[in-house]
Amino acid sequence: MSSFVVALDVGGTSMKGGLVTRSGEVLRTDRRATPRDEGPAAVVGTIRSFIDDLAVAGGGTPAGVGLAVPGLVTADAALYSANIGWRDVPAADFVPLDVPVMLGHDVRTGGLAESVLGAGREVSDFLFLPIGTGIAGAVIVDGEPYGGAAGWGGEIGHIPVFPEGETCACGQIGCLETYASASAVGRRYSARAASPATAEQVAALTVSGDPVAAEVWDDAVEALSLALATYTLLLDPSAIVLGGGLAEAGPLLADPLADRLRKRLTFRAAPPLRPAALGVNAGMLGAALLGWRAAGVPDAGATWSLDVLKSPRVA
Amino acid sequence: MSSFVVALDVGGTSMKGGLVTRSGEVLRTDRRATPRDEGPAAVVGTIRSFIDDLAVAGGGTPAGVGLAVPGLVTADAALYSANIGWRDVPAADFVPLDVPVMLGHDVRTGGLAESVLGAGREVSDFLFLPIGTGIAGAVIVDGEPYGGAAGWGGEIGHIPVFPEGETCACGQIGCLETYASASAVGRRYSARAASPATAEQVAALTVSGDPVAAEVWDDAVEALSLALATYTLLLDPSAIVLGGGLAEAGPLLADPLADRLRKRLTFRAAPPLRPAALGVNAGMLGAALLGWRAAGVPDAGATWSLDVLKSPRVA
Repeated sequence: MSSFVVALDVGGTSMKGGLVTRSGEVLRTDRRATPRDEGPAAVVGTIRSFIDDLAVAGGGTPAGVGLAVPGLVTADAALYSANIGWRDVPAADFVPLDVPVMLGHDVRTGGLAESVLGAGREVSDFLFLPIGTGIAGAVIVDGEPYGGAAGWGGEIGHIPVFPEGETCACGQIGCLETYASASAVGRRYSARAASPATAEQVAALTVSGDPVAAEVWDDAVEALSLALATYTLLLDPSAIVLGGGLAEAGPLLADPLADRLRKRLTFRAAPPLRPAALGVNAGMLGAALLGWRAAGVPDAGATWSLDVLKSPRVA
Repeated sequence: MSSFVVALDVGGTSMKGGLVTRSGEVLRTDRRATPRDEGPAAVVGTIRSFIDDLAVAGGGTPAGVGLAVPGLVTADAALYSANIGWRDVPAADFVPLDVPVMLGHDVRTGGLAESVLGAGREVSDFLFLPIGTGIAGAVIVDGEPYGGAAGWGGEIGHIPVFPEGETCACGQIGCLETYASASAVGRRYSARAASPATAEQVAALTVSGDPVAAEVWDDAVEALSLALATYTLLLDPSAIVLGGGLAEAGPLLADPLADRLRKRLTFRAAPPLRPAALGVNAGMLGAALLGWRAAGVPDAGATWSLDVLKSPRVA
């Protein structure tokens, strides 16, 4: 068997690729733009050539290929993505080589990596919540991501936390995402202060005592505390793993959030909040686990070192 | 192997017992008061003598015993129940006979029965939501009830649907249960109309055009639609199975609830709402499945006839 797999995390803007050995060494990482504007066939073509180039760089045929993709996905096909525009693409169509391949949902594949290698390594039931441009979660049940009956689960960003609140871009009312995503924090501050700002800038302004920033930040914390209370009561997780851009704020987010979550729950303890361990590499590393599963090595990852994996090799 | 198991569904007020054959014939059912006021030891004693009496009535030693109990529970022990007051009771302590025994959480055991024999027979991922004096749910994942990391999951009755709403008896704000349980519907009408009424009477008053009843009913539907939208987005169920006293209202509850749930979801379909199939027998029948599992017959129930099981044999 070849000593490495090719792993790809396909996003709407760019895709991250890697070569990962069976012992968890990341031999190489690379990044390419996702040509979404050119249509789904162009995206599939770019994925194919990216895989081919990575395999050549690895010096041979990989043992397997793993891909994390957005939308509705099974292990064998990318069924649908509004973001990329494809429908019913068989896994084999993504791969120009005759090697086993396995697909996974992007957020859930990141959650798989956090479960097997990362912040969820010691627990088997948790929520992986990356808070970025949007918010979606990976519900981890018995160590594996759970997508529900058809794979549409994990849409915690669109649960109604404020039922009489603001209208979300999705058309629903009071969604978590419309208050607490990194883009929402930037957007809501910019609208109030009539001055554009990113979530990172809003975080800095909050620290420096800006009252408008503090209010917007507080709304995000409040919305998150409601969503996490709901998740906790429904699914009794051992931990909640926070990732994505907003979690980079560290204690500015985690401390008040943990405090409010605890106060919202009167008859049970709150689960601990933990920072994600794998950062922007989570999806690619999860795809590497899928690649090794496709190659017939289902326990790959159990012995991988987190130190190697944390190195920010993805460009 | 003996031809029957003893099954008990232990509630705070009464316990339902049954003798159920391997082919799903309910040979006998019975009911006893739960002597909760006399303390946990008395409850355990009543369970023991009830099991003994049922076994004698069955004409011999059962193949196994299954018990559905409230609180925190594993297959081998009743760890904690605020309602009954026990702590760390080993499964064997409930059973005066030397036969295998398996415990289950009360609501989740009812959900197991609906999954294996009832309204969830055709699907593997759904929510079983009995709406009675209180509200708790059974999260069914891959055909089996899922209790979370420690067994505290399923508390959908206490998710915050109206974050600035009324205070629940649990101390939290805006819980589903404080608007939509059968007792909440009765209590909220009684407070407004200054005239006591049960949820059943509020339903009848709603049909007859009473505006106060209609408003209370509407609040319950609204709260449920929020909770079910949240559940749907998080866990993508194939169906939502409604049971308990409030679901007896039939279309008066289900029709507006299905309508609002559909309207709350803009980017995905709503799962169908189905009435529970097993009624008040769900817990006892689930306990029978546990008894057969304890006896080494894990697939018991797959061939049981729903017609037999639906007969309201429990006194």
